[in-house]
Amino acid sequence: MAESEKPHISSGLEGVYITESSICKVAGQQGRLYYRGYPIGALSKNSNFEEVTYLLLLGRLPTSAELAGFKSQLADARDLPKGVVDIIKEMSGKSHPMDILRTATSSLSAYDPEVADPSPEANLRKSIRIISKMSSIVATIGRINSGGSYVTPDKSMSHEENFLYMLNAKKPDKRQVDIMRDMFIIHAEHSSNASTFGTMVAGSTLADIYSAITAGISVLKGPLHGGADEAALKMMKAIGNPDNTESYIESALAGKQKIMGFGHRVYKAYDPRAKIIKEYLVSLQPDSSEEVKNYTAIALRAEKMMLDKLSTSHGIWPNVDFFAGPVYVAAGIAPELFTPIFAASRSSGWCAHMIEYWQNNKLFRPLEAYTGKLDLEYVPIDKRQ
Amino acid sequence: MAESEKPHISSGLEGVYITESSICKVAGQQGRLYYRGYPIGALSKNSNFEEVTYLLLLGRLPTSAELAGFKSQLADARDLPKGVVDIIKEMSGKSHPMDILRTATSSLSAYDPEVADPSPEANLRKSIRIISKMSSIVATIGRINSGGSYVTPDKSMSHEENFLYMLNAKKPDKRQVDIMRDMFIIHAEHSSNASTFGTMVAGSTLADIYSAITAGISVLKGPLHGGADEAALKMMKAIGNPDNTESYIESALAGKQKIMGFGHRVYKAYDPRAKIIKEYLVSLQPDSSEEVKNYTAIALRAEKMMLDKLSTSHGIWPNVDFFAGPVYVAAGIAPELFTPIFAASRSSGWCAHMIEYWQNNKLFRPLEAYTGKLDLEYVPIDKRQ
Repeated sequence: MAESEKPHISSGLEGVYITESSICKVAGQQGRLYYRGYPIGALSKNSNFEEVTYLLLLGRLPTSAELAGFKSQLADARDLPKGVVDIIKEMSGKSHPMDILRTATSSLSAYDPEVADPSPEANLRKSIRIISKMSSIVATIGRINSGGSYVTPDKSMSHEENFLYMLNAKKPDKRQVDIMRDMFIIHAEHSSNASTFGTMVAGSTLADIYSAITAGISVLKGPLHGGADEAALKMMKAIGNPDNTESYIESALAGKQKIMGFGHRVYKAYDPRAKIIKEYLVSLQPDSSEEVKNYTAIALRAEKMMLDKLSTSHGIWPNVDFFAGPVYVAAGIAPELFTPIFAASRSSGWCAHMIEYWQNNKLFRPLEAYTGKLDLEYVPIDKRQ
Repeated sequence: MAESEKPHISSGLEGVYITESSICKVAGQQGRLYYRGYPIGALSKNSNFEEVTYLLLLGRLPTSAELAGFKSQLADARDLPKGVVDIIKEMSGKSHPMDILRTATSSLSAYDPEVADPSPEANLRKSIRIISKMSSIVATIGRINSGGSYVTPDKSMSHEENFLYMLNAKKPDKRQVDIMRDMFIIHAEHSSNASTFGTMVAGSTLADIYSAITAGISVLKGPLHGGADEAALKMMKAIGNPDNTESYIESALAGKQKIMGFGHRVYKAYDPRAKIIKEYLVSLQPDSSEEVKNYTAIALRAEKMMLDKLSTSHGIWPNVDFFAGPVYVAAGIAPELFTPIFAASRSSGWCAHMIEYWQNNKLFRPLEAYTGKLDLEYVPIDKRQ
């Protein structure tokens, strides 16, 4: 194209395909989600985070022996170097946990002797270490923020069990572990969303995988992406009493405010992850605290109201972030850890995408349409008006 | 588009326009580059890093009073918190300086009370702090890597002078300062290249500017992007004797190796930055060390050889990274600091783009074409083959 023509702008890259991939299918029109061909519902019901991570990284479900080996690789990598814990301590109390996670994960590269090895085998080993340690970092951020000190990981526990153990310094109960397993699985992958795409942009320069994952965490922080679950719970807190739900949302919509936890670029149907989390939340009710019951009532009334509006221009579907908050509260998780847990889960998808993209790498380098002037004269500073 | 159709893949986003912008024009066919309408040659000849940063962030050249105020804002922000210096010390000797820069810059958010304020005014103030401190971080990495300790910045010096002072713990000579001024100006901006684009992907989620800049650094590390200047000098070192230049490159081309410092997605002519740096390098020769003279001879012979091939399929133009290495060596800069200096310079362009993009923000969320299977049956682990 000649440089003077006015080009078409692909705003937000909506509808632009950037690569082929066999990792994840988001069937947005049907409201279906697949990891490596398996429906998310089947994985959420039957699987666990280690197995899902194996599936995402290696492309197929493992045998018993393969899974056992993979689990011990993950478990062996859990412990954090002192320098990483020091960063968490220094930033704790001054920073959002996402800022701490971004910094601490970035620092992990200093302790990995394979950081500069670009071979696929080394990238798989580094991925396992990153995925394992990111959960340890998130747990340690929560632990130190609540006044505790670093808990040495327990290799005999599952990934989600050890996460809760490092967070609370006590063996978790089954209900907590089940919740975290579900949340880790559901958040592990979602095709080329903003953070996975940001990971790929970094990796496409042939930067190492620590740089790529740090970019992913940087992208995930925003309230239009990973930060939405925390923002949705904040809204439920602001609503306070379930009877205020409708009036709060009507007035937010009238003020053209975004309702956090609703709407998605790709889903034009019920987000299947939201459906799973909602069912989970409802199943928890009999044994829930008053706080969780209250959030649940607000969430269900808000959902009904938004679904009733589906035939109007305001109608939008709930997404994965909407019901997540109350479920996390039921597992005793502080709201500021929601997005870091999302990041720790998504590290599996980020690493899987990087390993796949590097097989046929191409640098991401888009263009901008220049709208300014040209050939301005540099006027000496004492002659400027 | 129906989900079953085979979509067009915009590989590497080549030729895809992502936004309108009035910051930078890369006229690739003509080999011209403009910052806010001013040709890079005029800025390199007449301006300085502070003024160029003002121009990029605020859209016009400052008056004397405006520049004086802006310079003192930058100078006031130079000092680094102890926690940031501690990270540099801890990672030094274990990490590439880009990994340290990425981590230390990420940690800066802990010390900025305005981190969560998304107003344009706060983002301008945060940009000034980030741009100022990134140079201090790079200088401190170099200082600590060479066995020294943190040098308190000198507010009376210019940006480039203070950078060299913090790096070497002594007042730099004029020649060094001139070189650094030129390099800081030339690297300050280059439209939506991979790292600026990565910055925008992170910022588009409404993540804060520290997250966005950390993403930019993560992207810049790769040898296909910022890492190319260090890689190009490594090649010159491997060539060793100027008389080996032609045979080395012929055999690299025959082996289909990438010649670092040549070729660019956008320029289909001589990169105007390479031209400026080359002229600069040649002008330095009379007073250069044997090492610099040697690199220069190799660089000029490699350039001639590649230009001679322009009529063939192998012909590609040198880019900004090719002549940068020998010039940095002439200023006494260690090769491992080339890319971090690039990042510290480019922080101006990253911040300018973020401030502009947020005025009309849209989340970047592209698509992938799924090539895998669907609706696979989850087979229990003891039944898998």
